[in-house]
This record gives sequence, structure tokens and C-alpha cells, in this order.
Amino acid sequence: MPIHATFLDEVSWDIPHQNWGVLEWDLDFQSMKAIGINTVVMIRSGLGWWIASPFETILKTEDVYYPPVDLTEMFLTLADKYNMNFMFGMYDSGRYWIEGKYQKEIDLNLRLIDEVWEKYGHHPSFKGWYLSQEISRRTKNMSKIYAEVGKHAKKVSGNLTTLVSPYIHGVKTDQVMSGDSAITIQEHEKEWNEILTNVEGAIDILAFQDGQVNYHELADYLEVNKKLADAHQMRCWTNIESFDRDMPIRFLPIKWEKLLLKLEAARLAGMEDAITFEFSHFMSPNSTYPQAKFLYERYREHFTI
Amino acid sequence: MPIHATFLDEVSWDIPHQNWGVLEWDLDFQSMKAIGINTVVMIRSGLGWWIASPFETILKTEDVYYPPVDLTEMFLTLADKYNMNFMFGMYDSGRYWIEGKYQKEIDLNLRLIDEVWEKYGHHPSFKGWYLSQEISRRTKNMSKIYAEVGKHAKKVSGNLTTLVSPYIHGVKTDQVMSGDSAITIQEHEKEWNEILTNVEGAIDILAFQDGQVNYHELADYLEVNKKLADAHQMRCWTNIESFDRDMPIRFLPIKWEKLLLKLEAARLAGMEDAITFEFSHFMSPNSTYPQAKFLYERYREHFTI
Amino acid sequence: MPIHATFLDEVSWDIPHQNWGVLEWDLDFQSMKAIGINTVVMIRSGLGWWIASPFETILKTEDVYYPPVDLTEMFLTLADKYNMNFMFGMYDSGRYWIEGKYQKEIDLNLRLIDEVWEKYGHHPSFKGWYLSQEISRRTKNMSKIYAEVGKHAKKVSGNLTTLVSPYIHGVKTDQVMSGDSAITIQEHEKEWNEILTNVEGAIDILAFQDGQVNYHELADYLEVNKKLADAHQMRCWTNIESFDRDMPIRFLPIKWEKLLLKLEAARLAGMEDAITFEFSHFMSPNSTYPQAKFLYERYREHFTI
Repeated sequence: MPIHATFLDEVSWDIPHQNWGVLEWDLDFQSMKAIGINTVVMIRSGLGWWIASPFETILKTEDVYYPPVDLTEMFLTLADKYNMNFMFGMYDSGRYWIEGKYQKEIDLNLRLIDEVWEKYGHHPSFKGWYLSQEISRRTKNMSKIYAEVGKHAKKVSGNLTTLVSPYIHGVKTDQVMSGDSAITIQEHEKEWNEILTNVEGAIDILAFQDGQVNYHELADYLEVNKKLADAHQMRCWTNIESFDRDMPIRFLPIKWEKLLLKLEAARLAGMEDAITFEFSHFMSPNSTYPQAKFLYERYREHFTI
Repeated sequence: MPIHATFLDEVSWDIPHQNWGVLEWDLDFQSMKAIGINTVVMIRSGLGWWIASPFETILKTEDVYYPPVDLTEMFLTLADKYNMNFMFGMYDSGRYWIEGKYQKEIDLNLRLIDEVWEKYGHHPSFKGWYLSQEISRRTKNMSKIYAEVGKHAKKVSGNLTTLVSPYIHGVKTDQVMSGDSAITIQEHEKEWNEILTNVEGAIDILAFQDGQVNYHELADYLEVNKKLADAHQMRCWTNIESFDRDMPIRFLPIKWEKLLLKLEAARLAGMEDAITFEFSHFMSPNSTYPQAKFLYERYREHFTI
Repeated sequence: MPIHATFLDEVSWDIPHQNWGVLEWDLDFQSMKAIGINTVVMIRSGLGWWIASPFETILKTEDVYYPPVDLTEMFLTLADKYNMNFMFGMYDSGRYWIEGKYQKEIDLNLRLIDEVWEKYGHHPSFKGWYLSQEISRRTKNMSKIYAEVGKHAKKVSGNLTTLVSPYIHGVKTDQVMSGDSAITIQEHEKEWNEILTNVEGAIDILAFQDGQVNYHELADYLEVNKKLADAHQMRCWTNIESFDRDMPIRFLPIKWEKLLLKLEAARLAGMEDAITFEFSHFMSPNSTYPQAKFLYERYREHFTI
């Protein structure tokens, strides 16, 4: 079960920035390619005040900073160069959906999709859309965003692939670690069956994050996730987190043994493919976390690549 | 708005130590020089049990450990060698001013100033004094320390420059993150107008830390800080923090985009100069945080140096 | 007071993994050897779900994952190669002793000892046993584990050396930082006198961790620890922690000045030897924490090795 895709976490939420320029990114795309990664997914095109490129639709209506570089153009150019697939992540206001203003979050992204497709759609590597807003049971009303945004993105782009990567409300979420109850697997199945019913036709690939549950719970969750995807005619990937959630430093690269265990669990569950969050900090020989280089080497040894 | 000064954080409070010897420090002074840094400010000459050099006045009365090297001599020698300015930071008992024993903290530092000036004042790079005790609204009685210590330091040294770098009681202080209310900009102006009135004549340069407020609040605060400095006949610098306060790992180097935004805000506010906290951990090509090397490279690219 | 021993923290509790393979470990054993380390102590052979080698006795009765490599064999082979001593750490269920099922934890380890001695006892470097369960005043019933496990280990192996490394219930324990009261030195002496009485004959070396108390308390605690060991006919080492407990990042390598101070305090207290937790993350030139390389260099300079 090799990993064929990675997120690109440049407008990041909780992972410190590596301050790479285009040369460092070019080198990292080469390192991805060398272990068989063929798809890069921009985790989001903006979060609150920060945006990945000078998007006119966002700059016009939102309080955001004009960005120093056009990351979208840079990533697409590199993906073109290395014959990889690129998926564009949506803008996350970090505000409207929290305040219940779902339509505002949707409208913003519909306009953004139009602009992005017109401006960047000519790149041969532009192969899909990533619906960035991460949801779990607590934010299930957000499925409305997934549905409308996903459908629009597919419509304007000739039906390109759409991807979501929600999380399980498990024991390692911040919410549960702060006192909330973890979900049961039955509740998870029931709630997500409902959510996925709402978003049918808008989402092609369902890739749950695999890090919020205990290792011994993972196989069962993967099985349910596969069943859910099948029932709603979606392809099922797993989002294999390559950082370690069990350590006081939040976060450094994961122990190889844990990654291997999750890869094997995904294979047994019949997952179609694996994406990781994310290569450049946690699995790359170029990472500013030196542990990542050794994870890369262990991974290469295992798959003899 | 380039950065011309940096703190040297060797007796540190919350930044883990790099364990550099004189060779590593020599190399780092070269790297500072290469991007135009001409001033180094020793953040403090001691904190509680730990002191930077074997100061007799401190060793005699305080429970402190005899230090393995004389950092003051080492830094001054390197500053001489590279034709840079050195400012000496005071001893922070970490105790007396917390217990309200302000006079004890003052007396200790007056004696220290006499000793330091006699012992190290001959160095051509010895160009000023840094009043280490960081204050905000909650500790404004400490302005008495600033006033007495600053005046004495100037008197014995032929009126060398004095610097302070207080912090704003903003949303990113530990106090506010623990439940305290953030200050408003009007309160900030009012309270600091009062504090600065108390320290006129003792302080030459006012360099507020720029990291405790939100990015979108920064421009307004910088403007008020400039106005405050002007009103009290002080020079106004900004202390541009080069570490990232928005991440769960506390702390790694800041994202270049954020540093650039703060540099630009400082330029627009008419700041005379910028000091950073601090080069050697967060912006240096020699840092043990590899992210710092890339911040250095982005900085050089931007200023084409 | 040089350090002659280090833990090997491969099935770790709170230190992120470096993802080293056998080549990286071989190099690190060379680096240990170069500064005089002659003893390596595997901190534990398993913790909860994770085990260091495919131990049949554990695999048969416990819910554990089959490990990707046999770390015990690897470490013993390297210790043989470099003429070093190896001590085997017990399995920590992370469960039974917390639930008061002490006998279950004991029985598991008795079976493990038999298996390990039969399988790995032929290695010339196999020189002792480490009783992994860390205890302080709050878990003193665990001395029963120490006693039974230690005696059995000695019996099957021809009286090889046994080591424990408990911690002091001091101000830097998680418990005290969460509101519990720190122990007094009198309570410490009294409680440990009782615990050690229970484990006489089972433990050869007592090596208290030195990081949970303040620096100015350390000398007194070391003196009491030495007295306790003497009174109970044990050899007394100190476990000099080489990571820094005073920083928000938990944990990076310690400041050299602090390590030096603890080495000197251990020498003055008449400690027979020093083990560190641990070389490979915090003192090694090969560590993925670059600060460690400089700690190694400071250490070599000091001892001119």
C-alpha cells in the first residue's frame, strides 16, 4: 500500500513554516517523485488573513494580506514539470462557517473557483479540487458547503475530481482531549451516512484522516469508512498522517513502525489509495525536521524504491 | 526597513540553548554582519540562578552559579572584531521585582553597572545598555527600575545609549491566553504615556515587541508607539520577533510572509530602526532550527544582500 | 565525573522517534564509544501495544503489534561489536500496574526474562537487567515488581547486575506541575528507605533521575540518595538527564552549563558512576536535534576527549 499523494501545507494551520523558495520546492517535488508520489493537493488556498496567491475575488471582499508569491502558480508549474497531478484547495475563512454563515463561505468559494479555473485551468497538471473545510460530527452542517462547492467546481472544470478529508471525532482530537466524548464507531457510521447522503454527486474521493483514533481502533474505522464510501458511490482513500500525535512536541515525524502499521491496515481494508499529511515536513529528505529524512529512508527500504 | 540589530539570548528564559562555543559564535557574528546587522544586545546578564559572566557584585550577594564562560567578554571581543555595537543587558533576579522589592533589584543593578563599566568599558564596541526587565501594564511599578538603572548607567558611561523593549498586553501574551483581558489601544496609549513620563531622561530608545498583538492590529499599535516615543523625546525602534507565536510548538522560526508584513508595517509607521528577537535561533543560517536558514535566505533575496 | 552509560530509548514514551536503521545506530554506538560510554541500557522492551522484538511470551498473551525489527538483537550485536555492556529493560504494560494488577505485570516479566535469557543470553555483551517501571512515592506498591522481577532476572542469568532509575516526586514532575505537592527531602528519605528495604537483594544499582528537582536542591538530594544506597548495600549511580525540563518545547537538549553543574554535583556527592537519559537524542553528534551535536562538542572540550 504505497502512498501516491501528499498535501502541500503552505498556508498552514498548526505546522510551522519551512520558508522554502522555489528551488527548495523543486527539489522536494523530485524527492516526492522518487518514491512514487504522483499527486499533490494544496491543503487550502487561504485561511483567514492569509492567502496562497493574489486571488482578486478574495482580495476584493475579504480582509486578507496580499501574498508575497503566487503559490498556486508555483505548485502548478512544478507539477507540470514533474508530470504530477495537482488539486486545488478551497479558501477557508476561519470565520463564516464558525458563525453559521455557511452561504457566505460558499459564495466566496464559488467565485474563487471561477477565477482559479480561468487563470490556472490551462495547466496540464490541474486535475482536481480539494474541499478544505475539515468536518467531523460537530460541524456536520458544513456538508452544505461540500455539496455546493464541489458541484460547482466539477461543473466549471469539465467534471474534474473532487476530494474531501474529514476527521473522526476520536480520542486524539483536541475536542476529546479537552473533555468532549469520543464518538463510537456506530455513531460515526450513522452520522457520516447522513452527511454523505447530502453530498452525493459533489464528492468523488473520500479520504478520512487516520490519526485521531487509537491504533487498535483503526482497522474497524477503516472498514466502516470503506463501507460508507462504497454505499455512496465514492472512491475511498486513506489520509495517512505522517506526524506523531502521541508526543508532547506537537508535531514531529511519526515513528516508522506506526506508519507501517497504518499502511498495512489501509491495505487490508481495501483502500484504493493513500494520501499523506504531509510529505514535505514529515517524510521528506529535505525537511527541516531531520527525523523526516530517516522516515523517508525507512519507507524506501521497505518498498525497495 | 532592514533589521540592523539583534538580541543575544544566551541566558535565556524560554528558548532552548544551542550550546555554541566561541567558534560557533564567531561564525554567527559573520552571518549577522553579512545581512547588515551592526548591533548586538545581550538580553540579560543573568536571570535568577544563572549569570552570563563571573560578576563579583552578583556572586557576593546572590545565590547564583559560577558560570563556565565569560559571555560578556566573548561577545564584546567578537563585536570589537566585527566592528559592531554591543549593549549590555541588566541582571534580572526573577524574584525581587515580583515580590515588590524594587529597590533591591535596583541596587543590585547599580553595583553591577559600576563593575561592568570598569571591567568591560574599555572595549570599543561597548556602546550602550539594555534594561532587561520587560514590563507591560501589569508591572508598571517597574518603571522605577528603568528610571534609576537607566540614569545610573548613562551617568557612569559618559551618556551611552539606553534601550528598553516592553511588550503590549495583547491577545498573544501568556496572561491573556490564560484568561486575562487584552488591553485596548486607548488603554495602552494612556498607561504607557504615564510610564514613559516616569522614565524620561533614563531611556533613549523605545523598542516595543511586535508579537503580542494580531497582525491586523499591528499597524495601529506601531503608530501609537511612535507617537509615544516622540512625545517623550525617545528614539523609536521596533522589536520584530522572528519566531512564530501562532504554532503549537513554542517556538520555531516565523513564516517569511509574516516577517515581511511586520517589516513593512514598521516602515510605514516611520520606525527609525528594527531589532529582532533574535537572529541566532530564528534567522541564522547556523541555527539549530533548520527553518531559520531558509528565513535567512528569503530575507537576503528580498533585500538582495 | 564522566558519563559511562546511556539509555536507549527506542520504545519511547514521550520522546519522538528518530527513525534510525542499523547503519545509523552503528554510527551512534561509535560516537558513544568515542566519549567513553561503555554501557547501553534498553529503557524498556515494550510499552503497551509496542514491543522491541518479537517476544513470544508477550505476543501470546498481550494485545501487542508484531514489531518490524528485532531491536534487542540489533543492540546486542552492536554492543558485542563495540565491546560494550548491554542491559535489558523489562516490558511495561502501561496498564496492569496502574489497575493494581501487580502480579500480572510480574508474571509477564518473569516469563519474558526466561525467554530473553534463552534467546539472547549468549551475547557476550549481555551484562544486566533494567527494571523499567519508574516509581516515585505515588506508586510505591510497585516495589513488589522490582523485588520479584529483579530476583528472578538475577537467578536465571547467573547473578547479572540489576539497575533501577526511579524519580523524585519533585517540582518538575508532571504531577506537581499539575497541582500536587512536591515531596520534602525528609519525606523522600523516609519513603525510599522503606521501599528499598522491600527490594534488597533484587537491585544492585540505584540511579535516581536528577531532573525533577530544582538545581539548588540537587546536591541535597544526591547526598540522601547516596546515603540510601549505602544503607541498603546498593551501588549508587546518578541518572543525569541530558534534556532540558525548563523550556516550553518538551524536550530539547539541555544547556551545557546545566549538565556540567549536575556532573559536578554528582562528583561531589560521591556517585560511583553516571548514566544519561539519553545520548542518542540529546548528546549525540548524529541526533536529529542539532543542538545535541554542540552539547557533544562542549562535553568533549571539557573532558578533552
